[in-house]
Parts: sequence; structure tokens; C-alpha cells
Amino acid sequence: MSKHFNEKLRAAAEQAQSLACVGLDPDISRFPDSLKQLPRGRQIEAFNRAVIEATSDLVCAYKPNFAFYVQYGIEGLEALIATRKAIPADIPVLLDCKVGDIDSTAVGYARGFFEEWGFDAITVNPYLGEDSLAPFLKYADRGVISVCKTSNPGSGDLQDIEVAASGRPLFEEVAAKAVRWNDAYPASVGLVVGATYPEQLARVRGIAPELPILLPGVGAQAGDVETSIQAGVDSTGYGLMVSSSRGVTYASQGEDFAEAARAAAIALRDATRAALTPA
Amino acid sequence: MSKHFNEKLRAAAEQAQSLACVGLDPDISRFPDSLKQLPRGRQIEAFNRAVIEATSDLVCAYKPNFAFYVQYGIEGLEALIATRKAIPADIPVLLDCKVGDIDSTAVGYARGFFEEWGFDAITVNPYLGEDSLAPFLKYADRGVISVCKTSNPGSGDLQDIEVAASGRPLFEEVAAKAVRWNDAYPASVGLVVGATYPEQLARVRGIAPELPILLPGVGAQAGDVETSIQAGVDSTGYGLMVSSSRGVTYASQGEDFAEAARAAAIALRDATRAALTPA
Repeated sequence: MSKHFNEKLRAAAEQAQSLACVGLDPDISRFPDSLKQLPRGRQIEAFNRAVIEATSDLVCAYKPNFAFYVQYGIEGLEALIATRKAIPADIPVLLDCKVGDIDSTAVGYARGFFEEWGFDAITVNPYLGEDSLAPFLKYADRGVISVCKTSNPGSGDLQDIEVAASGRPLFEEVAAKAVRWNDAYPASVGLVVGATYPEQLARVRGIAPELPILLPGVGAQAGDVETSIQAGVDSTGYGLMVSSSRGVTYASQGEDFAEAARAAAIALRDATRAALTPA
Repeated sequence: MSKHFNEKLRAAAEQAQSLACVGLDPDISRFPDSLKQLPRGRQIEAFNRAVIEATSDLVCAYKPNFAFYVQYGIEGLEALIATRKAIPADIPVLLDCKVGDIDSTAVGYARGFFEEWGFDAITVNPYLGEDSLAPFLKYADRGVISVCKTSNPGSGDLQDIEVAASGRPLFEEVAAKAVRWNDAYPASVGLVVGATYPEQLARVRGIAPELPILLPGVGAQAGDVETSIQAGVDSTGYGLMVSSSRGVTYASQGEDFAEAARAAAIALRDATRAALTPA
């Protein structure tokens, strides 16, 4: 746990006494009327700024998902950059982009996401293998969070396939590989495991006791928060980012969206604290 | 082969009598001096326009890779949009982005890449399963090209893992799933198989006799073009996009880059023709 990204995440979690990670996934159809006179990019920027101001003392990380900005074209991507800059420097920001490409191409993503745009961590897809992730793994001060067992209903199509050599499902092989990548490269390697699969989460935590885990699927996707948090934390009670997006940002779609986001983020923070407090 | 994307691809291939697909992957450090006084985005746009004008009668498709535009930030993405618009309407344009995320997120990518930016096809990553691809597969007039056996040296890390239930490597399971997705959804489903693995390509073609295959890894990645083309075409002699990026666009890094790109594209086209001509 001496890696830079892990330390930054741990410090932010201790500061907020929270494992809550708020996903910033703009959907302008759910923004309040008062924003709708602005151009799309300005709407997104104003909305996210208000959510960040209302929640930054409650979270250990923020997680914008790239797709929600891409859908608005250039305006959306400008708003993504502005959003990253609006987040206090001591809170890690993960870009959820799930990229994976051959090494000469991955270098381009690393330049863009780490160097041009300054994200602390990105999510990646392991299907192309270790050499496709190496360009990201070279960054000692960044996090590389590999999808492992995702929160969606169809995640088992590939991830649960039983591997002949080990008798284990594919996602467990990915978890084991991630442990090796974390040992072999400077970057912090982490794993994405959906809160919708608490048993699989416990298996992954057993295989990768020290890797940070990003846990989406609470809130709108309805995972059981407390069970998942207990299964997901590392031996120090940290190392987990419990992520909610729509459940926080669209808690209200009225003019009180920021206050409602704060209330939802407090509830998420308190759920992470309650799970951590011995009964 | 009656799906819209397949028909557009076939028509373009017949028109050019070519299976060549030129990858448009900007690297401004390799652009000629005469472009270097322009802002980065304008450099990329001017370079790509010159390559497109020099090669559009020689190709069945163009393939910009998203990472090479992301690395230049907003300027790069503006150049990507301009590049897409600069390509003649009858030539299909594949955005090589290898995306894969849960369904509500995939909707954002579909809106951005298909609707805002107008790409004919995208590449996707199957690791998250069928429901993660469904938002793309709903578009009857588009192509969804899944990575299967990629061209990089480490592609076997996951893709070659033997599946317990079938005794087959994982990439063959993906090929079989792609055939089912192509039957079940309106979009054209295709597969990415690296030219660096001709035996695996033949296996994939056997499993998926009618799906279009994107074949990267010729040129800079040094696959054997003729062996791969013979293994990769469908029963009609088409259904294959033989992709070269750096080998065409940076054939010369001098002021004659467009002429050199044309010469390299002619050589690639002729190699695809030679492979198709019975000896």
C-alpha cells in the first residue's frame, strides 16, 4: 500500500471518513430547468460543479464515466476537462473509460487521460493482455483499475467462464493477474467488482488482499451496500471505493439537486461507515 | 450478408477492387515540416485530408483509432470529426475505440459515436458480455466489430485461455458468440483478428463464415499478408478489411507523404488482389 495512488486514496478516505465515490455521469435530460438555457457543455459544467461543491467533504474519490461526456461531442469533452479541474486536488479522480488496445495505441490513451487531462486513475479492460496495459502501468503516480467482475446482469457471459487449467472462473484469473501486474509495475493496480455480486467480491478480495477495489452497482443498480462493503474492504478497512452515480446526482431532478445530492452522499458515506464499525 | 453495413463494405470493396483498409492514426511528430506551423488539430486535419485524397480510390474502408485523437485533447477530437466528414460518403468509416461498458453507459457511446459523429462502425470489447453490446447492436445500419484474437504479442494472456466446457480457447468462444449476436440483433457483427495469427484467423473464419473480419497487424506489425488474406476472406472472396495504419500514412515522413501513402496503399491493395486471384 505504499504506492502513490493508494496513498492518495487512503488519505482522502481518512479525511472524509468515507469510502463513498461519486460518479459524475451527465444526462442533461435530468438537469433542472434553471440550467436549460445554457449550452450543453456549460450545463454539464455547472451541474457537476454544484454536485462537487455539495459533496467534496463526503467522498474518497470522484468517477466521471467517459461515455457520458462523449455522447455530447466536443462540448461534453470540454465539460469533462472542466469537471476534472473543479475537483479539489487532494481527492483522486478516476476516469471510467475501460480502455484496452495494443501497446502503441495505449500510449495515446495514457498521454491523453494521464498527461493532457490529469486523471489520477483510469479503468481498463484486460482482454488484450498484459502488454496492452503496460503503457498505463508505467506511471508510478497513477492508478490502473482493471474490470474483473462487472455489475451488469450479463457479466458472466465471459467473466464466469470456467478456465480449464485452474477450474476457476475467468474473473478470478484476472484478479490473480492483476496482483502480478501490481507487483511488476510502478502503477497502482486495482479491480472493478460489481456490488451486485457480493460472493464474487469476497473471492476477489481473497485473491487480491491489498489491491484497491472499485465497487459500482450500489444505488441505481441496487447492490446490498453493507454486505458488499464488508466483503470488499482490505485488512485495514480501506482499499474500497463504493461508487454511486445516478443515485447521488439525480436524487432530485429539481432545483434542489445539489442539496439532494449532498443528502444522498451523506447516506452513502454513513453506510460505508456503518459497515466499517464493529457491531 | 444482407445487412446494411456489410453491403456498404462490399460495395466499397468492389468499387476499389480492394480489401485495403487504411488506418488514420495521427502522430504529429511524424508529420512533415510544412505542417508544423499550424495548430495541432489543423495539422491532423490537413494530414488526414491529404492521405484520404491520395487513397480513397484504393480502399474498402478507413479506420481512425480513437486513442490517437484523444492524446491531443479537444483539438484532436475536433480533428477526428473533421476527418470523418472528409471521407467520401460511400466508404465505410470504422472508429477503432474498443469500448465495452454496462448498458446504460454503452448508450452514451452509441449516441456519441453513431449519432453525433456518424461512424459506420465501431470496435467493441466483449469482456462485459452481450448486454453491454446490445445498445450498439440495435442499430440496423451500423457495424459492431468485436475484438476476438488481437494482433499484439500478449493477446494470448486471456484470449488463448482454454475454456473448460469446450476445450477451445476463449477467442473461439467469442467468435461463436458473435455469430449468435449477428443472428439475434439488427446490426452487422464483425470480428477483429490479428494478421499476426494466421492459424487462429482460419479457426475464426471457420466458426464465423459470414461475419466481416477486421485484420490489423499487416505492415508495421508484420503479419504475412497473403497467408492471412487467404485464410480470412469469406466464401465470396470478400468480408475482410486488411488494415494498415503506420505502414501507409508514414511511408514517408517528408513532404511527399501523400504520394508515398498512395504508393503504399496501392501495394496493399495489390496484395489483397493477388491473394484473391487464383494462382
